[in-house]
Amino acid sequence: MKSAKPKVLHEAAGRSLVGHALSSALAAGASRLAAVIGPDRGDVAEEVRRYASTAQVFVQKERLGTAHAVLAARSALEQPADDILVLFADTPLVRPETLTRMREALSDGAAVAVLGFSASDPTGYGRLIVQNDELVAIREERDASADERKIGFCNAGLMALAGKHALELLQAVSNANAKREFYLTDVVGLARGLGLKTVALEADEAEVQGVNTRVQLASVEAQFQVRLRTAAMEDGATLIAPETVFLSADTKIGRDVLIEPNVFFGPGVTVEDGATIRANCHLEGAHVGKHVTIGPFARLRPGASLGEHTRIGNFVEIKNAVLDNDVKVNHLAYVGDAHVGADANIGAGAITCNYDGAQKHRTEIGAGAFVGVNVALVAPVEVGAGAYIGTGSVITKNVPADALAVARARQEVKEGWAAHRRAKNPKKKS
Amino acid sequence: MKSAKPKVLHEAAGRSLVGHALSSALAAGASRLAAVIGPDRGDVAEEVRRYASTAQVFVQKERLGTAHAVLAARSALEQPADDILVLFADTPLVRPETLTRMREALSDGAAVAVLGFSASDPTGYGRLIVQNDELVAIREERDASADERKIGFCNAGLMALAGKHALELLQAVSNANAKREFYLTDVVGLARGLGLKTVALEADEAEVQGVNTRVQLASVEAQFQVRLRTAAMEDGATLIAPETVFLSADTKIGRDVLIEPNVFFGPGVTVEDGATIRANCHLEGAHVGKHVTIGPFARLRPGASLGEHTRIGNFVEIKNAVLDNDVKVNHLAYVGDAHVGADANIGAGAITCNYDGAQKHRTEIGAGAFVGVNVALVAPVEVGAGAYIGTGSVITKNVPADALAVARARQEVKEGWAAHRRAKNPKKKS
Amino acid sequence: MKSAKPKVLHEAAGRSLVGHALSSALAAGASRLAAVIGPDRGDVAEEVRRYASTAQVFVQKERLGTAHAVLAARSALEQPADDILVLFADTPLVRPETLTRMREALSDGAAVAVLGFSASDPTGYGRLIVQNDELVAIREERDASADERKIGFCNAGLMALAGKHALELLQAVSNANAKREFYLTDVVGLARGLGLKTVALEADEAEVQGVNTRVQLASVEAQFQVRLRTAAMEDGATLIAPETVFLSADTKIGRDVLIEPNVFFGPGVTVEDGATIRANCHLEGAHVGKHVTIGPFARLRPGASLGEHTRIGNFVEIKNAVLDNDVKVNHLAYVGDAHVGADANIGAGAITCNYDGAQKHRTEIGAGAFVGVNVALVAPVEVGAGAYIGTGSVITKNVPADALAVARARQEVKEGWAAHRRAKNPKKKS
Repeated sequence: MKSAKPKVLHEAAGRSLVGHALSSALAAGASRLAAVIGPDRGDVAEEVRRYASTAQVFVQKERLGTAHAVLAARSALEQPADDILVLFADTPLVRPETLTRMREALSDGAAVAVLGFSASDPTGYGRLIVQNDELVAIREERDASADERKIGFCNAGLMALAGKHALELLQAVSNANAKREFYLTDVVGLARGLGLKTVALEADEAEVQGVNTRVQLASVEAQFQVRLRTAAMEDGATLIAPETVFLSADTKIGRDVLIEPNVFFGPGVTVEDGATIRANCHLEGAHVGKHVTIGPFARLRPGASLGEHTRIGNFVEIKNAVLDNDVKVNHLAYVGDAHVGADANIGAGAITCNYDGAQKHRTEIGAGAFVGVNVALVAPVEVGAGAYIGTGSVITKNVPADALAVARARQEVKEGWAAHRRAKNPKKKS
Repeated sequence: MKSAKPKVLHEAAGRSLVGHALSSALAAGASRLAAVIGPDRGDVAEEVRRYASTAQVFVQKERLGTAHAVLAARSALEQPADDILVLFADTPLVRPETLTRMREALSDGAAVAVLGFSASDPTGYGRLIVQNDELVAIREERDASADERKIGFCNAGLMALAGKHALELLQAVSNANAKREFYLTDVVGLARGLGLKTVALEADEAEVQGVNTRVQLASVEAQFQVRLRTAAMEDGATLIAPETVFLSADTKIGRDVLIEPNVFFGPGVTVEDGATIRANCHLEGAHVGKHVTIGPFARLRPGASLGEHTRIGNFVEIKNAVLDNDVKVNHLAYVGDAHVGADANIGAGAITCNYDGAQKHRTEIGAGAFVGVNVALVAPVEVGAGAYIGTGSVITKNVPADALAVARARQEVKEGWAAHRRAKNPKKKS
Repeated sequence: MKSAKPKVLHEAAGRSLVGHALSSALAAGASRLAAVIGPDRGDVAEEVRRYASTAQVFVQKERLGTAHAVLAARSALEQPADDILVLFADTPLVRPETLTRMREALSDGAAVAVLGFSASDPTGYGRLIVQNDELVAIREERDASADERKIGFCNAGLMALAGKHALELLQAVSNANAKREFYLTDVVGLARGLGLKTVALEADEAEVQGVNTRVQLASVEAQFQVRLRTAAMEDGATLIAPETVFLSADTKIGRDVLIEPNVFFGPGVTVEDGATIRANCHLEGAHVGKHVTIGPFARLRPGASLGEHTRIGNFVEIKNAVLDNDVKVNHLAYVGDAHVGADANIGAGAITCNYDGAQKHRTEIGAGAFVGVNVALVAPVEVGAGAYIGTGSVITKNVPADALAVARARQEVKEGWAAHRRAKNPKKKS
């Protein structure tokens, strides 16, 4: 990846690769999760707990092979379990449905179920040798015969193990090989030696794509986006140009939502029925109520929550602010750390001054208030319901309900001044 | 569609599906239009009249088949006509040229001309049986023989009928079939029974794609965009990244226009020769004069009209405003409900306050005027030609030509205040 | 091209077509450059010198064929040279590596090396007749036999000539043909007549694509973008949606740079390691330091230079301004013709008033200064280090270090005014 950041913390669809693996396991019904990470990777451990707060985190101190990695979670494996799924944090596209199929194979009597795929180019992959619906061996390419190399059905790495056999099989793996590593794939032969059934299931090649480069990361991102956009359309949203809308894995889009081109949804966004997201909007951690219209060129930052029929216009930023129903913020404004009551109108260029250079403060704007153009509300401050703030005012003290507040210098005019000045200073450039 | 909105009101390329059908018919030279709509669909009737103000609108009270639907327009059919085209409001990509070909087939002696396409997957479609250049039958799949099912030439639904035979044929259609429906396709057999000639014409499969889901709607949109972008390039515009430029069916783009990526053209936009539309602009109902430059990040709303060489910069919104030649609005401004004279300069953060909480008012800015940074012009107000408005002023009264107007408080300084405050309030977060 | 502009001045990846040809030649190690242009094309000559200041520019007064064009540079050809590459200004995608291969063919003993490609549709192209690894003829289609027309290996136009033979060969070309033109391709036959070796090299068809229409220009642009995006990813940048990021040929992107969708890089941009470019940013001629975050919706114009960890937020424009480390300009601001010291905070809506209607002036903001919301700094002006500018102030005089400066009217309140006004002016529309 050519990165200072561990691979599994790179993100696709607004979620880290390891987060995808954990989310898929949870969606497939996993009741306990154990993550095996490298030494000194507190950042990965933290990310694991973000997606699965009860996950146990184990450290593999030396990299002695995949079976050795799984055994780093020995204390978790020692607890009773129906089945154990082994996932890889750099294979984020695996669908929960696929994991469920693997678990079902165990229910149907297999001790080991391996996930495979028909490779467009099998070179380098272990081949899955299947006979009579059973997986009889995983053959690494270097050990494969000429005939076996013609097999296109390859090992994707993921494995499901019956709980009652898992520990025994894993402990039986030896490192008597060229690289002195403990290979997870050896459990297939070991299981068959014990007379246990082993099977292989097939997934799409795309679904088991791993991530080792940024180009592959972009490819994985693209596949997530196709899934998410299609689901949004199937659920009743119109995406004028789906290929230009970027969703996060947790984005929720209601019915009869219209999304214009070039919209970016970061994590944590919900858009309710009938809302319109115009072109070039950027949303993160925001709630968009029914029949809201935002944009074009609107930005909702985390904590933005918009009531029904509220309108956010162009070049407007909302952050950590609750706007009730029917509020209008149509142009060039910033509303942050605030609550705005229903039917209030926030003028163009109006800004909540939430930061004084040392601390953040809150602004409260009452229902039906009218905040004029270029008004600055210096928080902490309250504007009462129905109050009217004159254009260009800097409001530093609370304004009572239904009052007018103005802070403005008187307009003065000097006749002929501009003509005189032009004569003295001819225009040079603009 | 999973939508509260009727399907034919969904839009592609800035135009409703029914609007596309009507526009194509008009472009193909249709002199009278009749629309058959469902009961209680005033919204569809209104949309029909938007695109064809003289169209007659008929209501099909019960859904008894396609021939029954056409006969709902009986009074229109009873008027003399050379030919009658039957279109479907959910097949928006049909080109006027194709309709013209259908009409020409009638001129060449056919009584009925049916539009077909070579289906990539014919399953479910009626097959067009052609012998000696004549259409001898439309065979529904359930009635087709094994050999007939191998035919890939399928019925697209659109039909042209010779005016002198249309009513007779349509009235002869019976509902003696399993579903008790009157099928439009029956007119082919009826015409042949009368010794009349019937033919089939071929269109591209893409051209006759119907819309039944949002995914199909997105596909139709994409096809319109390819057409519109290619036409714009062929007419002499440069689109750096055509796949990121979204046009409306009525967008007019001149020669030597340069369009950067990510530009959205809503309905009603004209861009004249030599203009530059920089990245991330959004235009609707706007006129862009010759050699204008807008953007990046500019928004032109309906009624924006820009004279030659005028420049609109970033984070600027223009609405219902006429800007004459050589005007500059370079940054972070809103000009709405206004007229701006030639060569005026509108500073960053300047805003026309067109709404006072109750009504909208107009602003008039004279030629050569200089409106300073963060100025608010409280409409209704006039700034005379050549006048100069000082930075940060709120202008509530008219400013004479060539005058200076300022509304500003005096700058006061308290030495050491900031250092003292920092000592008391150490910074917490920003 | 349907353009008032000469074809070779049209641009792809932020560089004119002729600029690409010159840049490729320089990258392939060309030590002298000669450009042959049409009469009265001072604009092309200027563009040539922009990319190769020492290039000699020659004018071909009459268009008498490609060999005639090359001979327009006779005085350059008369100077000693190891080899001479003949490029075309409308074939911009040729890689320097390909030119190097052509030069190597000369080093290996050939007198003439012609670049060819396997054409998906050879119709209209001259065919390259190769026997025993030598190019024995270039056969124009009209002169080709039926068998020769089946050859798919076609002439791309580009040629390398051994320096010691070039002038002799070119001068030997005659115009004894139907069109009375001097064809460059004739040098192959002439060389072989002298017993010299001539060879053909193959390039990808895409690499030698010419530009004759805007659709082809868009195709060339798209290919440049794929190259540039892939290189950026391979060098360690994450592009969430590479297909939406537009780079210039000279864009420099560091390692662990994250680029969200819809970002446009005009010419002259450098982004250092660890920076984040959020969605919908637009950069030209800008330097982005390490760990800077910009956007979404930020615009950096030429001369913007951002120190490490500086943050530029939404709807912010920076032009011709140096911002030191840890500066924050988070919202709706314009900083132009300025220097901002480290750790300064520029509030929302703050604007440097660099233009007074006649001239541009500079603003100096000291380290650690706090510029409040909606502040206008009327240049030329200096804000001292650690100074604090109160919200909404118009600053026209220098502010000492650590001082507070305010220019603000007192807030006045009229109780009940808004309620009274609403009663008189019921709301009409908003």
